[in-house]
Amino acid sequence: MYQAPGYGGSSHHHPGYASGGSVHSNHSTRYSRPASNYSYQPGPPPGTDPTLWTYFTGVDTDRSGSITANELQQALVNGNWTKFDLDTVKMLMSIFDVDRSGTINYNEFAGLWKYIQDWQGVFRHFDRDQSGTIEGHELAEALRSFGYNLSPQLLRLIEQKYASAPTSGYGPPPGITFDRFVRACVVVKTLTESFQRADVNRSGYVQFSYEQFMSIVLSAP
Amino acid sequence: MYQAPGYGGSSHHHPGYASGGSVHSNHSTRYSRPASNYSYQPGPPPGTDPTLWTYFTGVDTDRSGSITANELQQALVNGNWTKFDLDTVKMLMSIFDVDRSGTINYNEFAGLWKYIQDWQGVFRHFDRDQSGTIEGHELAEALRSFGYNLSPQLLRLIEQKYASAPTSGYGPPPGITFDRFVRACVVVKTLTESFQRADVNRSGYVQFSYEQFMSIVLSAP
Ligand SMILES: [Ca+2]
Ligand SMILES: [Ca+2]
Ligand SMILES: [Ca+2]
Ligand SMILES: [Ca+2]
Repeated sequence: MYQAPGYGGSSHHHPGYASGGSVHSNHSTRYSRPASNYSYQPGPPPGTDPTLWTYFTGVDTDRSGSITANELQQALVNGNWTKFDLDTVKMLMSIFDVDRSGTINYNEFAGLWKYIQDWQGVFRHFDRDQSGTIEGHELAEALRSFGYNLSPQLLRLIEQKYASAPTSGYGPPPGITFDRFVRACVVVKTLTESFQRADVNRSGYVQFSYEQFMSIVLSAP
Repeated sequence: MYQAPGYGGSSHHHPGYASGGSVHSNHSTRYSRPASNYSYQPGPPPGTDPTLWTYFTGVDTDRSGSITANELQQALVNGNWTKFDLDTVKMLMSIFDVDRSGTINYNEFAGLWKYIQDWQGVFRHFDRDQSGTIEGHELAEALRSFGYNLSPQLLRLIEQKYASAPTSGYGPPPGITFDRFVRACVVVKTLTESFQRADVNRSGYVQFSYEQFMSIVLSAP
């Protein structure tokens, strides 16, 4: 039933919590439990990365053996210690709850964990001034590096929509925290792919019915 | 400078906090301050509704004379006591921060307050089972009553996207809390109006460039 996922292993080491998003580590939980113990509390599956298993059991606070959205939201914090917003948590669950159980089991967690780590690397890379947030020019560079050639107007809309606070009339919007940066990038990716799928003859224009339009928009995170 | 807004007055009485969204009332704040006092702490403008002024000063916790997004998010809670999500707070600020100062002054607050009260009435009306959340059939009825004739597929997408937790493979999505219900309705309104504006000949189809498409979607709350 349990298998170490292909992308598991030592790459799950988690460098530098503070600047990107991170996971609350409960130290008393992390070190007090033996690797295998009671029958109602299964130990790690064979071949498990012990570090990853430790993270998994730390997030699974009620020891049910799987992680709920609420447990995940409690565990995931941005560099400024704000919790991930619900829409980002729901997005992560929709990507990694592969068996649609509504919760994240250990195998699913391995994928989720690697995904968050990868995005942390991206976030730290583009947070040039190490402010802990992604500002407009950092966002532009990130999206350009992902292959999106967006107009200054669209970049400005994304910067405002995903900023961690409203924009005032004076000065640029506040920066984007880790959770919202990931969501912004996934939304741009999802919408762009939907547009390209609809643009079958690559004309740069698509024709949408109301149903198609609404369906595409409401399916994006 | 201060004017009692046209929609102010006794209609600002706030019935039944528990079932819809509500505002934390700090009772020590609400009753301990005289109506006018120190020079650095202006009293209410002439003609002010005392109840509304009390709410305003209760939300303006640092007594700066205007409400920040953070103060607003601290003040606004759903029926289940969860805070409004950031995207809803930003949406409210974008609607009611008329002078684009980045904060909500007393005049702006009057509009915001009425808007929330009106939505609370809507929410309570459509929360037929008084569960404190809007479930799928309640959502369908609400949107139909607003004049949106949405397919079951679109209604399902909205129900999932704005649910207060992820959907599992078993059973319907969890209900929608007040903050997310308001956002869902405003998003449907905004997207529908954008589509209708683009559908100049009322054919039921629109042609979008990538720029237009992304701009419309990213401009919605
Ligand atoms: Ca699962
Ligand atoms: Ca930065
Ligand atoms: Ca203002
Ligand atoms: Ca209900």
